[in-house]
Amino acid sequence: MTLGIVMLITALIAFFVTSLLGIFLVPYLKKLKYGQTIKDIGPTWHQQKQGTPTMGGMMFIVGCLAAVIVGLLTLLILEDFNVVTVQMIRVVAGCAMALAYGMMGFVDDYIKVVKKRNLGLRAREKLLIQFLIAIGYLYLLEVSGGVSTLVDIPFLGQFDLGWFYYPLMLFIIIGTTNAVNLTDGVDGLAGSVTFIVAIGFLAIAARLQFSYVSILAVALAASCLGFLVWNLHPAKVFMGDTGSMFLGGAVVALAFGIDMPVLLVIIGFIYFVEALSVILQVISFKTTGKRIFKMSPIHHHFELCGWSEMKIVIVFSLVSAVCGVLAYFAAPLV
Amino acid sequence: MTLGIVMLITALIAFFVTSLLGIFLVPYLKKLKYGQTIKDIGPTWHQQKQGTPTMGGMMFIVGCLAAVIVGLLTLLILEDFNVVTVQMIRVVAGCAMALAYGMMGFVDDYIKVVKKRNLGLRAREKLLIQFLIAIGYLYLLEVSGGVSTLVDIPFLGQFDLGWFYYPLMLFIIIGTTNAVNLTDGVDGLAGSVTFIVAIGFLAIAARLQFSYVSILAVALAASCLGFLVWNLHPAKVFMGDTGSMFLGGAVVALAFGIDMPVLLVIIGFIYFVEALSVILQVISFKTTGKRIFKMSPIHHHFELCGWSEMKIVIVFSLVSAVCGVLAYFAAPLV
Repeated sequence: MTLGIVMLITALIAFFVTSLLGIFLVPYLKKLKYGQTIKDIGPTWHQQKQGTPTMGGMMFIVGCLAAVIVGLLTLLILEDFNVVTVQMIRVVAGCAMALAYGMMGFVDDYIKVVKKRNLGLRAREKLLIQFLIAIGYLYLLEVSGGVSTLVDIPFLGQFDLGWFYYPLMLFIIIGTTNAVNLTDGVDGLAGSVTFIVAIGFLAIAARLQFSYVSILAVALAASCLGFLVWNLHPAKVFMGDTGSMFLGGAVVALAFGIDMPVLLVIIGFIYFVEALSVILQVISFKTTGKRIFKMSPIHHHFELCGWSEMKIVIVFSLVSAVCGVLAYFAAPLV
Repeated sequence: MTLGIVMLITALIAFFVTSLLGIFLVPYLKKLKYGQTIKDIGPTWHQQKQGTPTMGGMMFIVGCLAAVIVGLLTLLILEDFNVVTVQMIRVVAGCAMALAYGMMGFVDDYIKVVKKRNLGLRAREKLLIQFLIAIGYLYLLEVSGGVSTLVDIPFLGQFDLGWFYYPLMLFIIIGTTNAVNLTDGVDGLAGSVTFIVAIGFLAIAARLQFSYVSILAVALAASCLGFLVWNLHPAKVFMGDTGSMFLGGAVVALAFGIDMPVLLVIIGFIYFVEALSVILQVISFKTTGKRIFKMSPIHHHFELCGWSEMKIVIVFSLVSAVCGVLAYFAAPLV
C-alpha cells in the first residue's frame, strides 16, 4: 500500500515535471537554434522537420530523475530503512549511468546544433565514451556485489557465464543504448515504445517485489508520457541523442535492476529489430550490393511503404506490448 | 511453465484464426452489402467510409472463442483436473454471455445491412435483450456459487452490498457493453483499447493465479490484435455491434472472472469516459441548450478538434495503459 502511494506520487512528479518543463524549454531550444539540421539520411519529406528543435530529452531526464529521487527518499523515510541494499545500489548506479549517457548525447546534440557540425561527435569518439560509461557502471555493480555471472535465460534456465559475462554485458549495454538511439526516427516512436517497455518492467518488478526498481520504472514510464505530450506527430520538439541515449541507459538500468539483463532481448524486441535492420542492410549492401529494406532503420522502410508516422507508432507499440507480456511470463517467478 | 505454453498456444490460435479469417470474411461481407450505411450522426467526412463492410467482429468472436476452447481443454488435460471449479464456471459462463451479446449485435447489424433499416434494432428492444442476457449470466454465476455480495473496492476495502449487489452488477454489465459499443467510432479504437484492457486483466489474473481467466484474457488480447490487422486506419472492415457487444461482454467476463467487477471502472476508464461524454452532452443540451463537446462520444470531439484517427487511437491507448497499471496495483494482492 505504501509502495503504491509512493509510486503514484513518483508517476505524477515525473509526468508533470516533464510535460510542464516543455512550456519553458521548447521555446528556448527553438531560439537556441532553429532546430537541428535533419540528418541527410532520412526520407526527403523529413526536410519539413527542419524547424523542430531537438535536445528535448532534457525534459524527461529532469522529470524522471527528480521523480526517482523523491520516490526513493520517500520510500526510505516511510519504511525506515537503514541498510543500503544491492537493489538500491543497482538503481542509483543505473540512474547515474543513464544520466552519463544522456550527457554524452547532449554533447553530441550541442555540437550539431550550436557548432553546426551536422553529425556531432565522431562515431569512434561516441563508441569509446559509451564503452567507458558501461565499464564504469559494471564496475560499480561488481564492487557492490550487484553482479552475478549466473544469468537466467528465459525458458532455458540458469547458466554460469564466468568471465564471458563481462564482454556480453558490455555488448548488451552498448547495443541497447545505440538501438534505442536508432529507434528515435519517427515522431513519438522511441517515447511510446519505451513507455511500453517501462510498463513491462514495472509489472515484472512489482511481481518480483523489487520496490526500488518499480520506482525507476514508473518514473521512466510517466516521464515518457509527459514527453509524448510534446513529441507525438506533429512533434513540437525532438528528444535528440540527449533523450534517446538516456532512455537506453534507463532501460538497461531496469533490466540490471531486476538482475535479468538478458530479458532486454525480449522486452526490447523493437529496439533489437531496429538495430538488426541497420546491420542486415549494411551487410547485404556490402556483400550482394542489394538492399533488404527500402531504407534502414526499419521504421523508415515502413514509412516508404506508405505508413503514416502514427501508424508506425501504433504498430510498433502494439508489438512492444506483446513482447512485454512475453517477458512478464518469461521472467522467472519468485 | 505449463500455463505459459498453453497461453502462448492460445494467443497464437486467437491471433491467426482472427486475422486469417479476414481473408475470406472481408470480401464476403463486402459482397453482402456494400458496407453499412454510416450512422448519420458521425462527422461528415465519415461518409467516405460508406464502402467499408461491417460485422467484422465475427472474426474475433470465432478466433477468441476457438482459442479459449483449445486453451481450456489443453489446460484441463495437461493438469489432469477432475473437479469443476468456480473459476472455470465463471470463464465459461462469461464466454457464453459475451457470445450472446455478440449475437444480439449481429442481429442488429444484420437488420441494418441486409434489411437496410439504418438504425437496426430499436433502442428499447436492445436494452431489454441486454438486460435478459445480464440476468441470465448473473443467475448462472449465482447458482454455481460464483458470486459474492462482498465486493472489493480498490483502496477502500471490502463491503457487503447485500441485495444491492444485483442491480449494481446489472448496471455495470449493461453499462460496460454499451460503453464499449460507443467507443467503437474511430478506426482501430475499440480494438486497441480492448487489447490494452485485456493485457491489464491478463497481468492481474496471472499475478493472482487465475489460470482460466488468463487464458480468456490472452485470447481476447490476441484476437483484438488479429482484428487490428484489418481495422487500423484505413479500416478494411468494421467490427460492428457484433464485435463491440462481444468485446464488452468479454471484458465483463474478465472482471467477473477475477471476481472484481468494480475494477472495470479503473481499467475500462476509456469506455467509461466515452459513455459519460454522451450522457453529459445529452444532459447539458436538454437543460442548458448548450453542448459541452463539439460532438459526442468524446472521440468525435477530438476528431473535430483536428486530431487524426490514429492520434486518437494512440492517446486513448496510452491512457488505457496508465489505467491498466493503476488497476494492476489497485487489485488486492494475494
